[in-house]
Amino acid sequence: MSSQAQAAMSDAEYAIKFRRSSYTVLGWYYGSLYRMAKGVTPYDQALFLRDAEYFSVLSRLAKEGFITGSESGDTKARSEIWSKAEAFKLANDLLEVEAARLAELAKNADFTAIQTQFAKVQKTCKGCHDDFKKSTN
Amino acid sequence: MSSQAQAAMSDAEYAIKFRRSSYTVLGWYYGSLYRMAKGVTPYDQALFLRDAEYFSVLSRLAKEGFITGSESGDTKARSEIWSKAEAFKLANDLLEVEAARLAELAKNADFTAIQTQFAKVQKTCKGCHDDFKKSTN
Repeated sequence: MSSQAQAAMSDAEYAIKFRRSSYTVLGWYYGSLYRMAKGVTPYDQALFLRDAEYFSVLSRLAKEGFITGSESGDTKARSEIWSKAEAFKLANDLLEVEAARLAELAKNADFTAIQTQFAKVQKTCKGCHDDFKKSTN
Repeated sequence: MSSQAQAAMSDAEYAIKFRRSSYTVLGWYYGSLYRMAKGVTPYDQALFLRDAEYFSVLSRLAKEGFITGSESGDTKARSEIWSKAEAFKLANDLLEVEAARLAELAKNADFTAIQTQFAKVQKTCKGCHDDFKKSTN
């Protein structure tokens, strides 16, 4: 996006673009971790650790984009994000905790423990989508 | 993006979406650092450090999206990214180095050193845009 294009966006439009982008990038690394955890691609400890660390950092970002005024527009955000803000915060906090735990476990070679923890991350993603994300814009 | 929508994308389309999203997220934190470094908003050491650390991690991501086959499409990538791959790698490496240095300096309170280093990051962004980014798709 050129700076002119960005300048033409409202704060709300830019926040929506940011949070959607954050989830896209998070999803990219989720995909990499998924493939290794599920045996679709070979488990590479160094790559898994790197991507788990990226995923852990990325898990903290999107929440900044749910600013007041960005409830509607090009977004799949449900209104519950704002009307049940405390529950949404807890869901975000849980993702951050589970993601940090995965990155911590990825330092070691216990692949079964990694797979178990990845399943918790998966469940956390799904739980938040079920409660706070629309299936269409 | 729903998993169906993602599944409907080619690998190249998904890589383009990923790298553009990475730059959007990088740009969000660039904006935060810019505003503090330039005095648009007050300098908050803890926030600057956090965002410089995010920026440093994010500076390593987008390069993964320039896969073979993703030269055209919904992208501002110039063909030089592939025809001058070594130069593009050097430009990426430089961003990572300058971003890591900014995050390191941000641990200390020497605001002048931080401003000087931020100017280097800025120059690195611009240099890469000049050489490798189109102004329109």
